[in-house]
Amino acid sequence: MSDSTSNRMWGGRFAEGPDAIMEAINASIGFDQRLAAQDITGSRAHAAMLAACGIISDSDAQAIREGLLTVLSEIEAGRFSFSTALEDIHMNVEARLKELIGEPAGRLHTARSRNDQVATDFRLWVRDQCDAAITGLEALQRALVAQAEAGADWVMPGFTHLQTAQPVTWGHHMMAYVEMFGRDAARMRDARARMNESPLGAAALAGTSFPIDREMTAQALGFDRPMANSLDAVSDRDFALEFLSSATICAMHLSRLAEELVIWSSAQFRFVALSDRFSTGSSIMPQKKNPDAAELIRAKVGRILGAQVGLTMVMKGLPLAYSKDMQEDKEQVFDAADSLMLALAAMTGMVSDMTANRTALEAAAGSGFSTATDLADWLVRALGLPFREAHHVTGALVRMAETQGCDLHELELGQMQSVHSGITADVYDVLGVHNSVASRISYGGTAPVRVREQVARWKGLLG
Amino acid sequence: MSDSTSNRMWGGRFAEGPDAIMEAINASIGFDQRLAAQDITGSRAHAAMLAACGIISDSDAQAIREGLLTVLSEIEAGRFSFSTALEDIHMNVEARLKELIGEPAGRLHTARSRNDQVATDFRLWVRDQCDAAITGLEALQRALVAQAEAGADWVMPGFTHLQTAQPVTWGHHMMAYVEMFGRDAARMRDARARMNESPLGAAALAGTSFPIDREMTAQALGFDRPMANSLDAVSDRDFALEFLSSATICAMHLSRLAEELVIWSSAQFRFVALSDRFSTGSSIMPQKKNPDAAELIRAKVGRILGAQVGLTMVMKGLPLAYSKDMQEDKEQVFDAADSLMLALAAMTGMVSDMTANRTALEAAAGSGFSTATDLADWLVRALGLPFREAHHVTGALVRMAETQGCDLHELELGQMQSVHSGITADVYDVLGVHNSVASRISYGGTAPVRVREQVARWKGLLG
Amino acid sequence: MSDSTSNRMWGGRFAEGPDAIMEAINASIGFDQRLAAQDITGSRAHAAMLAACGIISDSDAQAIREGLLTVLSEIEAGRFSFSTALEDIHMNVEARLKELIGEPAGRLHTARSRNDQVATDFRLWVRDQCDAAITGLEALQRALVAQAEAGADWVMPGFTHLQTAQPVTWGHHMMAYVEMFGRDAARMRDARARMNESPLGAAALAGTSFPIDREMTAQALGFDRPMANSLDAVSDRDFALEFLSSATICAMHLSRLAEELVIWSSAQFRFVALSDRFSTGSSIMPQKKNPDAAELIRAKVGRILGAQVGLTMVMKGLPLAYSKDMQEDKEQVFDAADSLMLALAAMTGMVSDMTANRTALEAAAGSGFSTATDLADWLVRALGLPFREAHHVTGALVRMAETQGCDLHELELGQMQSVHSGITADVYDVLGVHNSVASRISYGGTAPVRVREQVARWKGLLG
Amino acid sequence: MSDSTSNRMWGGRFAEGPDAIMEAINASIGFDQRLAAQDITGSRAHAAMLAACGIISDSDAQAIREGLLTVLSEIEAGRFSFSTALEDIHMNVEARLKELIGEPAGRLHTARSRNDQVATDFRLWVRDQCDAAITGLEALQRALVAQAEAGADWVMPGFTHLQTAQPVTWGHHMMAYVEMFGRDAARMRDARARMNESPLGAAALAGTSFPIDREMTAQALGFDRPMANSLDAVSDRDFALEFLSSATICAMHLSRLAEELVIWSSAQFRFVALSDRFSTGSSIMPQKKNPDAAELIRAKVGRILGAQVGLTMVMKGLPLAYSKDMQEDKEQVFDAADSLMLALAAMTGMVSDMTANRTALEAAAGSGFSTATDLADWLVRALGLPFREAHHVTGALVRMAETQGCDLHELELGQMQSVHSGITADVYDVLGVHNSVASRISYGGTAPVRVREQVARWKGLLG
Repeated sequence: MSDSTSNRMWGGRFAEGPDAIMEAINASIGFDQRLAAQDITGSRAHAAMLAACGIISDSDAQAIREGLLTVLSEIEAGRFSFSTALEDIHMNVEARLKELIGEPAGRLHTARSRNDQVATDFRLWVRDQCDAAITGLEALQRALVAQAEAGADWVMPGFTHLQTAQPVTWGHHMMAYVEMFGRDAARMRDARARMNESPLGAAALAGTSFPIDREMTAQALGFDRPMANSLDAVSDRDFALEFLSSATICAMHLSRLAEELVIWSSAQFRFVALSDRFSTGSSIMPQKKNPDAAELIRAKVGRILGAQVGLTMVMKGLPLAYSKDMQEDKEQVFDAADSLMLALAAMTGMVSDMTANRTALEAAAGSGFSTATDLADWLVRALGLPFREAHHVTGALVRMAETQGCDLHELELGQMQSVHSGITADVYDVLGVHNSVASRISYGGTAPVRVREQVARWKGLLG
Repeated sequence: MSDSTSNRMWGGRFAEGPDAIMEAINASIGFDQRLAAQDITGSRAHAAMLAACGIISDSDAQAIREGLLTVLSEIEAGRFSFSTALEDIHMNVEARLKELIGEPAGRLHTARSRNDQVATDFRLWVRDQCDAAITGLEALQRALVAQAEAGADWVMPGFTHLQTAQPVTWGHHMMAYVEMFGRDAARMRDARARMNESPLGAAALAGTSFPIDREMTAQALGFDRPMANSLDAVSDRDFALEFLSSATICAMHLSRLAEELVIWSSAQFRFVALSDRFSTGSSIMPQKKNPDAAELIRAKVGRILGAQVGLTMVMKGLPLAYSKDMQEDKEQVFDAADSLMLALAAMTGMVSDMTANRTALEAAAGSGFSTATDLADWLVRALGLPFREAHHVTGALVRMAETQGCDLHELELGQMQSVHSGITADVYDVLGVHNSVASRISYGGTAPVRVREQVARWKGLLG
Repeated sequence: MSDSTSNRMWGGRFAEGPDAIMEAINASIGFDQRLAAQDITGSRAHAAMLAACGIISDSDAQAIREGLLTVLSEIEAGRFSFSTALEDIHMNVEARLKELIGEPAGRLHTARSRNDQVATDFRLWVRDQCDAAITGLEALQRALVAQAEAGADWVMPGFTHLQTAQPVTWGHHMMAYVEMFGRDAARMRDARARMNESPLGAAALAGTSFPIDREMTAQALGFDRPMANSLDAVSDRDFALEFLSSATICAMHLSRLAEELVIWSSAQFRFVALSDRFSTGSSIMPQKKNPDAAELIRAKVGRILGAQVGLTMVMKGLPLAYSKDMQEDKEQVFDAADSLMLALAAMTGMVSDMTANRTALEAAAGSGFSTATDLADWLVRALGLPFREAHHVTGALVRMAETQGCDLHELELGQMQSVHSGITADVYDVLGVHNSVASRISYGGTAPVRVREQVARWKGLLG
Repeated sequence: MSDSTSNRMWGGRFAEGPDAIMEAINASIGFDQRLAAQDITGSRAHAAMLAACGIISDSDAQAIREGLLTVLSEIEAGRFSFSTALEDIHMNVEARLKELIGEPAGRLHTARSRNDQVATDFRLWVRDQCDAAITGLEALQRALVAQAEAGADWVMPGFTHLQTAQPVTWGHHMMAYVEMFGRDAARMRDARARMNESPLGAAALAGTSFPIDREMTAQALGFDRPMANSLDAVSDRDFALEFLSSATICAMHLSRLAEELVIWSSAQFRFVALSDRFSTGSSIMPQKKNPDAAELIRAKVGRILGAQVGLTMVMKGLPLAYSKDMQEDKEQVFDAADSLMLALAAMTGMVSDMTANRTALEAAAGSGFSTATDLADWLVRALGLPFREAHHVTGALVRMAETQGCDLHELELGQMQSVHSGITADVYDVLGVHNSVASRISYGGTAPVRVREQVARWKGLLG
């Protein structure tokens, strides 16, 4: 088929024809230039090892290593001109190196291949993201702990089904998220440890006959060890998927806190006031504060999960070793990592800045007979009623209060005794919301004393 | 919390503090500048309508409309300086308009809001993508029809489970994809028709008290009608999800054809040779042709599905009307649309350029007793055996041929009759692969005559 | 490897060894028995056609058709014993038919294969689900229209970012969902029309040499036409994916309404009271009503999207024609369809039963200077101010009201004139929430008159 | 709205009206009965603790604990009648306990709630699945190691892009998957360790005022410790998501091996023969073996990822603490776990049973100038050519061989020297496929000596 015929087929967007299309779909330099620092670090370690093993000369290694530093400085200074014709970051760097140092540049690629090179670069990049996520999570945890410490004994409604169930403390609610984000950080730590093996030296797929020292490059790059199978080293991307999975779970947690902030900021709840910095206003309704940052954080779980779905789909059913499909790994991970770090930073800012409305929280905590469970527990504990009978008595007392339009603690003792004669004045001790939360001293419970213990524990852990 | 304290929390990436974070998460101009043409087209229609309805003066409308053209030409020439402080494309355009024409610019936003404006812009953009997908699909169909026409009677193996099952024709195989991509185009047409309603005039969410004419702007923008509910108009993004869903199904079809091309290009199959333009070579193995484009196309279904998952997740559980979460709709759709169009163009190029290896196809078609079903059908048709008994006889004949190391048509009549005495010499008519495919003349069958009918039908449809 | 060795490998769950594992992974009768009615209907049409075309005798066809009715009645009565050894519904039915009618049963499978048979059965099943979804959606729309009609002029807050933005009418809010669900039904109609082609007669993959009449079976089964390519007919599952995609979008809409019902049922909002039938209570807090049904509906979008992701993944990269992977199509679709229908029915029930709290809605509608936009629009309309200047004046008036702790309509005219001297007493006409909604009479606007128009239109459409 | 009106709305499937719908959407006993053993184990531990802490009497605890054992034995024997009216497994068990032991049954629910109860049950169940996955993975690894040991020095093509790239050993290829599945098992171990904390005692959400001992129940149930925040304990399902994520990655690995088995089983490759037990045949094509089990395994990644997407979606944006949405957690995890275990068992069986075709593998390994890289490396190593120049020389030699229709090792020395005069007879040492693989002795390389080291290492690890 002639070019002119086929050209007609592409339609407008690709009017330039097949070559433009192939370049557009094939080249990765548009995105993998983000791996420049990792690529150069990896190459410098490789060159040093080649010399140490006698595969290239010391002077060549020296020239290569210095040349690469020059390339890196050009890139960092924005003075590097990336070429699509050179396809990817590896070729761009090497071509520039050749311009800078000449013939020795041609020895750098000895005993390696773009397959193990990109696997190394990408692993280094993802490893950095694990670290960044951990740092971001710890900052968020500190912000939450600060809120918890300030409000360890402020009461608020504990909800189930968004209906008031039992009073809890503000500090307890904040600390629930500290636990969640703590597990998220632990997942990132596990992922980092598992991925921290060096693919370098796997070469194209089969290893190499050069007498290389993979331990040496592994150590230079901060890896715990070289990977034990060269086919595996260039074929798998499970480390990226594990990062994305962990990021998804973390983003899910963020979406829950974000949803709470949106609901709590509504005129109907008014549980918190967000700072101006993380809200947007209205030019004509000055009291209006839109919780934009919370909404955007809530949304991020979508694109992060989307990235994970996308990459899993890409990897499905790929035969070993390298297939070009795997070039689709990077943009997904870049976008998800950026989204996660941004969401963590924004949430940290919002949590640090927000002001709880103690009055509104306490008023809401006491509504809806929220201490009915405390009453039932008192009947079991003080009078020895079986749990199910205690519930029955409590139900009767709540209906009595509801009929009279009062709260439970406003019923008179005589009225209570008319429902169950064993009730004593001690019962009033459990009916107020402050008494209620103070009583829940089981380990992990909402009592201020327990909250403060957890605050102290986490302050120790977070340093 | 003081700025210096909170600054410490952000860590390196957001060292500039809360304002930098909020700007990073909140501003959309980094991506929504792709809506510039749609935004300006929408504003020009709005201005014309405002004047026609007497809401602004004709001279103001004239100034606005001309000023907007200037802005557009600046953007298209790359001379426009986008400002993150102005957040989004709407504000960027309006600010520049004000610089250009002064006070009348302030009247443009009468009786509308950014909520209906962005809904309009995005609908126009997605509508264009439906059209582009249809164009791209038709080009691909034409390339497939051309292959089918050339090879309407070339035989190849029809596989089930990647095992040879029955002979089919190359043309028939190509036309199977023409059907699939035909349905994909139909889905895009349905999506386009359904989304082709104008949100403009819904204003912030409730409509407006200005005497606007929504029919007029709808018509000017090529919409079939204005949307019937203003809350719905600014709240929903189902049109984008429908586009993504249709794109996902199309990308799934592309992944199947791509997988076939990868397998068919292997040294073991050699069913097709891809052109150099859509392969990459090896500097030292000149015969090696890596089907990179096919692999990359195969991968695209991942990110397109990922986008759909992402946006569905974003929309889940959002109360009416507008929430800022919805700003996350665009990047997903942009990326998915780009991926789809690129994959369609690349596949069209590959299919146009590829060369079927008739010899290899025909040799493979006849292997594995692929006409055993033809034999069984002949026994039913010619001898009146029940289907299940015919299968039994066929099995015996195949085993006989296998034992003798020959193919079915190489058995002698006497040998066949020793298994079933009713068999006549007519049986040889169905045992060759060409006879086999020629016999399958049921509507939609693989016979060349049927394939040519379908080729003709589609050539008519595709113009 | 000996059986005893390999047996040790399976571990506890599959201690019985390889055969048990293969049966567990391979057999589909555990789920595809749901296709029994479709399978028998398809077979009856096929038998009638075979006889009409002279391929089998009329008496055989008669015996087959009656025998199949007996099988169906046995299945429907729960008297059929499904056998895993017979793998799937097709073989189970055929084996029983053979017991019932003997040798003619063996002729039923002439000119077809399990490949086109299952494609036909599944298409018929999914087609029914499209119809069921449409019926369910229309019922839900009727419930919403009834709510809208009753409350066409009740005012409530229109939210953006869950912050009060402008007053809207209850009817308008209900009708927004009527529009969304209307598009969902349209998507189901389009999907149904596109899938309504008959795969029957495609046989294993290549068509058949028997002189069958595919039009006849297509017509008997209510299909619009036979599919035009036999490979396509047995290979693709895009119709199931399109159903799942449409179901996902619909479920997303349901999740939004469900979220609103959960929030509106909270003690802080109290916008609606759900009926006892769709809530659960607490044995000790009688006033507590948990919106369980709404929460479960909100969740269903997860498993429906999950099904779509799952099936897309299954189909990714499958070569033509049939691969066993495709057996994974059914359970996903069954579960998603059940979830959708249940969610639609439950939402219809909840919407029908729920009671809007007019007092709470109206009180909330007027809070937060929600008519500020009306004031700004009045300044533009009545005084000819440019929009941006009108916003400035409005902001000043709102701040004045806020300072005085009053609402906008409580400011005196003189006070207003101190901000802009042109303001007249007419301004009060737009400041009340009822005035506000009544004024938004643009097409699709929230004015009761517009809402009633849409109610009438939809009552006509829904019959 | 009257019942008769609303009844008309449901349509056929839910003709019984609202109560049937609510029961259908609300009850979980249809699936959560799978948690029976965990529920009873948890309750027995709770009862023992209540007695030890003096909250209930020893005799009551004794009666409860024995009664629960009776209930469990009834369930295991299939003699238990589950009631939908009792909603869930917890109520079903407790109701039966009451029948069996009377009033003390009412004391079991002291100091706990269904919220912490179900969180405990589900955690125990998922923890078991982690263990089952590890067991299944180790069995699969053993099967792969056995294959690797047998074929440590068999040569086969190492592919990139499904094109022959370099020879590798069968053992090396098998061991690549051992590494992948080893990481999968490690992920399961990490997930198990992270989830191994006890929610029991969190009560409804706030902890309890009873003097319970959460350490005691945690220890009795094999948990490492009680969870530190009661709100977190009843609100989160990240442990289930982490299991699903790990299962998804594992299923992705399985899909890759399955794809290879499907391709390798094709007539064109014939690299392996699967056993009859894990294939299905054709009644008339006796030589045909469909790799059904491999295809079904390949498909499972779809539904497992689908489950993860589904549950992530469910959890997105849920406010604390318990919402009914979370009831949708179980079916997804049940189905994914079943799918994973089945896929692992089937793959283990297939790998154990399969027979590699050494002849076909070796023939394919040598095709396509697969030792060209070895030649280039030799030029670098032996002659000191820069890598890029060595590539150039190799390309010339390959073209020479291609022109002559011979393989590289069939070129005469003189011919080689005409391209580069430095080449010596030593070059032939690297040109055969056995020489090639033997030379790749870098750590993790494909040389048999390296493969045997890894086999030994893993045999040690796997016990």
